[in-house]
Amino acid sequence: MAWHRTGGIELERLIQLLSRLPGLGPRSARRAALSLLAEPERRLVPLAQAMQEAAARIQSCEVCGTLDVTNPCMICSDPDRDHSVICVVEHVSDLWALERAMVHRGVYQVLGGTLSALLGRGPEELNTQSLFRRVGSDGVSEVILALGATVDGAATSHWLEDRLARYDVTVTRVGRGVPMGGTLDGLDDGTLVAALMARRPVARDDG
Amino acid sequence: MAWHRTGGIELERLIQLLSRLPGLGPRSARRAALSLLAEPERRLVPLAQAMQEAAARIQSCEVCGTLDVTNPCMICSDPDRDHSVICVVEHVSDLWALERAMVHRGVYQVLGGTLSALLGRGPEELNTQSLFRRVGSDGVSEVILALGATVDGAATSHWLEDRLARYDVTVTRVGRGVPMGGTLDGLDDGTLVAALMARRPVARDDG
Repeated sequence: MAWHRTGGIELERLIQLLSRLPGLGPRSARRAALSLLAEPERRLVPLAQAMQEAAARIQSCEVCGTLDVTNPCMICSDPDRDHSVICVVEHVSDLWALERAMVHRGVYQVLGGTLSALLGRGPEELNTQSLFRRVGSDGVSEVILALGATVDGAATSHWLEDRLARYDVTVTRVGRGVPMGGTLDGLDDGTLVAALMARRPVARDDG
Repeated sequence: MAWHRTGGIELERLIQLLSRLPGLGPRSARRAALSLLAEPERRLVPLAQAMQEAAARIQSCEVCGTLDVTNPCMICSDPDRDHSVICVVEHVSDLWALERAMVHRGVYQVLGGTLSALLGRGPEELNTQSLFRRVGSDGVSEVILALGATVDGAATSHWLEDRLARYDVTVTRVGRGVPMGGTLDGLDDGTLVAALMARRPVARDDG
């Protein structure tokens, strides 16, 4: 027999959806729901509205894949950025980390993840089509691969180097500074600066 | 200069509101927002709707103070419960914990917190008016004080015992089983059963 919880199916559902957020489990989702319901007008309704607005207005940039309220995003449509240098990252949060460190004045490409043998994620699931389109057009001189120093990140970097070798573009990789097993989002700004500064050209076999 | 984050004020606000949830900080709020925005139709919109519905439909029971979609709540309007025994708890989550353990067949009173010298919370901020009204009317034979074994919980129990002494009702306190410093919500069912079973009458000075 299921135990009884007051609040009905509405509360059940709210707690269930909250518990799927990264960082929240069933117990903390209960606490979160109760704290929101303690002040519904001041806390629950504003959060619901912020979510509705975010869902309605935020979209993926058709050029680089980051999330923004404009399309193309603020970075892609900024004439003061250097559009000849594309920095490839895994996630939007990695782009934010680099922007926070104010270390890259070019533009970005957000893959949305990495290749992963374990998760069965192949190239078609990464946001690479617009990358190859951009690199294939005039004006792009350098692609910086700024993926995490994980097994999957390294495999994805290698695959991208391979695919980018057919274009007339310099491919570099952030190197020193990214600790083994780490993701870009978790780094301090100094380490991010070091990693960007220490980027090196990828050795390419001219075959 | 503030660092730039794509997503505009909408995303900024969503992250800010999420970071106020208990259990989430600024970093996990960013992760939560991004994970919701990764699948807006499947995850963000349903959560926003669940919140809107909860805000519109869930209210405090005018009798006991718990949260429910009906008013009076399911428990207060259940003729199969023993309405002569009122179990007083601090929070809705404590009521849920006792219901989960299926250890109390009576009804409840949810105070919404405890007295607190530190937080300057006095009796007028607790949901006690309906408790005294219920105890003052016919048919209530026992009030079980099931507050946490904290300094504030003990002070609140003591204050309630004092106030309830003027009514013709047996006042008991859950005793053995609640570990010092613990709150009811954090206990296993067995300990909750032990605490309820070991309740004892409060010594009252007949003066």
